[in-house]
Amino acid sequence: MDKKIIKELQKKLGKDKIFVDREYLVAYSYDATGNQFMPDLVAFPENEEDIKNLLKIAYKYRIPVTPRGAGVGYSGGSLPIDKGIVLVFTRMNKILKIDTRNLYAEVEPGVITQQLQLEVEKKGLFYPPDPASLKTSTLGGNVAENAGGLRCFKYGVTGNYVLGLEGFLVNGEKIKAGAPVIKDVAGYNVKSLLVGSEGTLAVVTKIILRLIPLPEHRVTFRVDFKSLNQGAEFINKVILANISPSALEFMDRTSIAAVCKYLGIDPGEDVNASVLIEIDGNRADIEQRKNRFVTLVQESDVLSYKTAETPEEQEEVWNIRRNISPAISKLKPKKINEDIVVPTGRIPDTIEYINRLAREKGLTIIMFGHFGDGNIHTNLMVDPDDLEEMEKAEQALDEIFKYVISVQGSITGEHGVGISKKPFMGYQFTPVEIEIFKGIKRTFDPHNLLNPGKIF
Amino acid sequence: MDKKIIKELQKKLGKDKIFVDREYLVAYSYDATGNQFMPDLVAFPENEEDIKNLLKIAYKYRIPVTPRGAGVGYSGGSLPIDKGIVLVFTRMNKILKIDTRNLYAEVEPGVITQQLQLEVEKKGLFYPPDPASLKTSTLGGNVAENAGGLRCFKYGVTGNYVLGLEGFLVNGEKIKAGAPVIKDVAGYNVKSLLVGSEGTLAVVTKIILRLIPLPEHRVTFRVDFKSLNQGAEFINKVILANISPSALEFMDRTSIAAVCKYLGIDPGEDVNASVLIEIDGNRADIEQRKNRFVTLVQESDVLSYKTAETPEEQEEVWNIRRNISPAISKLKPKKINEDIVVPTGRIPDTIEYINRLAREKGLTIIMFGHFGDGNIHTNLMVDPDDLEEMEKAEQALDEIFKYVISVQGSITGEHGVGISKKPFMGYQFTPVEIEIFKGIKRTFDPHNLLNPGKIF
Repeated sequence: MDKKIIKELQKKLGKDKIFVDREYLVAYSYDATGNQFMPDLVAFPENEEDIKNLLKIAYKYRIPVTPRGAGVGYSGGSLPIDKGIVLVFTRMNKILKIDTRNLYAEVEPGVITQQLQLEVEKKGLFYPPDPASLKTSTLGGNVAENAGGLRCFKYGVTGNYVLGLEGFLVNGEKIKAGAPVIKDVAGYNVKSLLVGSEGTLAVVTKIILRLIPLPEHRVTFRVDFKSLNQGAEFINKVILANISPSALEFMDRTSIAAVCKYLGIDPGEDVNASVLIEIDGNRADIEQRKNRFVTLVQESDVLSYKTAETPEEQEEVWNIRRNISPAISKLKPKKINEDIVVPTGRIPDTIEYINRLAREKGLTIIMFGHFGDGNIHTNLMVDPDDLEEMEKAEQALDEIFKYVISVQGSITGEHGVGISKKPFMGYQFTPVEIEIFKGIKRTFDPHNLLNPGKIF
Repeated sequence: MDKKIIKELQKKLGKDKIFVDREYLVAYSYDATGNQFMPDLVAFPENEEDIKNLLKIAYKYRIPVTPRGAGVGYSGGSLPIDKGIVLVFTRMNKILKIDTRNLYAEVEPGVITQQLQLEVEKKGLFYPPDPASLKTSTLGGNVAENAGGLRCFKYGVTGNYVLGLEGFLVNGEKIKAGAPVIKDVAGYNVKSLLVGSEGTLAVVTKIILRLIPLPEHRVTFRVDFKSLNQGAEFINKVILANISPSALEFMDRTSIAAVCKYLGIDPGEDVNASVLIEIDGNRADIEQRKNRFVTLVQESDVLSYKTAETPEEQEEVWNIRRNISPAISKLKPKKINEDIVVPTGRIPDTIEYINRLAREKGLTIIMFGHFGDGNIHTNLMVDPDDLEEMEKAEQALDEIFKYVISVQGSITGEHGVGISKKPFMGYQFTPVEIEIFKGIKRTFDPHNLLNPGKIF
């Protein structure tokens, strides 16, 4: 980048916010995909004014700007693939307001997801979205990717809690969308358009999030099955039985084996699938739904089940689920990590299809995830040095995405498109639909400077 | 309209679907606002093919097309203000699928809201959105305006149930957005952009709606108060008490008097505000929340309260609420009907402000509505022949909208902007934000032919 521009940025924002040193550039060239793209400059804005000033300068010189949360995304959304500036939100990490009367929070994008959850829970309130990375991910990143998590079946995704957004267009002009109210139909729904737009339309500087009263009590169950199909069919029964679980998670045999080895615990004999279920609500309500659930378990082909009533017992169950990702990463040098979605009734077919594909191609494909909402984390375990295996994995991926679209699903449920799912967008969208995306992009960002090269 | 174009349309779609007779034009020139704009032609498409063919012809000759549901909107959204074609969805009224395994319905836009509700309830499922006009309004109209209703506090608005949309761009090209899954983050959220876009971006031909299990049981309460403020404060207590009501409605003194007179029932002495509350869920859950609610009532400044347990008793309570609109219409020749929204904690201030304004200007302003979500139906009762009163009403309206924006509310919660709220868009949005709306419009509809002249 031209020294003149660096100096102009340093002068306007302060030298302690603008870095071009190699160690900074390297540190912000990666994300959780493991891909690397070197930026020209890393900026650490501290407030709205910094963002506005930076954008105005970048716009003047037509320099790409890539906003970045914690960099724990799985689709490359925060990678500066066209170089330019990485805009790091680490220093914009204040919870600005927790309004207990009007039930909303106002936060800066750099706030860690779990930090907000803990703060609002102290006040008897609840912010449900809980992506698995909640201890490191930022709310800004959650909004950019419309992050999901474990509780979506009952509570919905991040977008369901975004009441309003404030931020800046690429040229530094301020915009607001939405307000701290549940109902608002004035103008086009720009707020929902910005949620999940992966930082390609505007730079968000303030997020207004809906809070709800904290449920009184929680109970967690773990149910083990002899076969994958029995587990998948059981999930469908739970969905239709009016038990309204807040989480409905699934682990296949390989996930269970890997995570048990990783944590040094016994996987149990003959366990080929596990379902984890959480119900929450008031105590009387939980008691009734618990009874209904136990009846359902007794009527089903279940190997064994276990109820976790105390927070400690529950932590033990969820700890297993949360460690699947790191555990399976040990199995092979590389994990191709997809987050396909299918209508919940198609889960058993989809699992069967993918397992057959894995057998045919001699691949290890591990499935687990949020089956309550049809979101199957599908992990192709490969060795990048084994070119034959890599080619088979690519073919398998291609077939999986085609299958998902054939059953009216989606290529991504919560990770976003970024760069990793770009090649498959044509499976889900027609050229006409992609032209609409591009038209929207041009409306917000005519010179293609905000997080360029992503999505389409 | 040129005879050649009429003939071309009749030839392509069939003579029984294309009308230019005066009685047709008049019938489709009005909506619930009472405003009249004569179209040139009324079309009754019967399937996707008809819509595609009609749009292609209209596009070729650059003729405006205004889609129309039941015409019961309160903002003029379905009025053909630039003439051209009114596209009536009466004949596209089929429920295409109720998928009890995957929990969704596929419908054509002309299906009446209540018809879908009754059909899915037969199968033990629930479609919650319930605009007051549900017996006449269409699901297409509900989607176009992102309709709300009585159950939004717990269940959300129409948009929260739209999983997917299919339709056509103005030039007749097919588009899809979304899918029958809860999680989907591929591409920009065009689905949410189309919901509430008032038919200005695309013509929707198929709607995929999320269904949920039907709650086991319902209980309704009516609580009366000596003062408006006591009622408004009580609503805030209910919201914060974790009772999770499915409906939380409010009526002021004038609404109560008018509706009781209209229905020939006794309003009760000293009643200056009424709050209607519904809780739903499983029986044990309701029992616990009912007890909590009764404790809350006993701790509050309540004049009297009544519990409605049976469907008949409940119908009696809700019948009062649903008749407010027709009842107050009898009070004065014209009702200027607004649906402002404020953060729920600001409801008492807002009511006080509007009442003071009414007194100062000597106007009758009636307030009722969905206070659980801050949505206050504000009705300025006027005589259009009384020019002085009309001027005062206009001034009051202007001040009310300014006030609403000053407390971070919205000028419309469920009616949409259409033509009636267009003059106030500048209060809620900056010129930069309105330019974004216009850019989005140009992306979808470069020649401004779809429902032109609405929103901005």
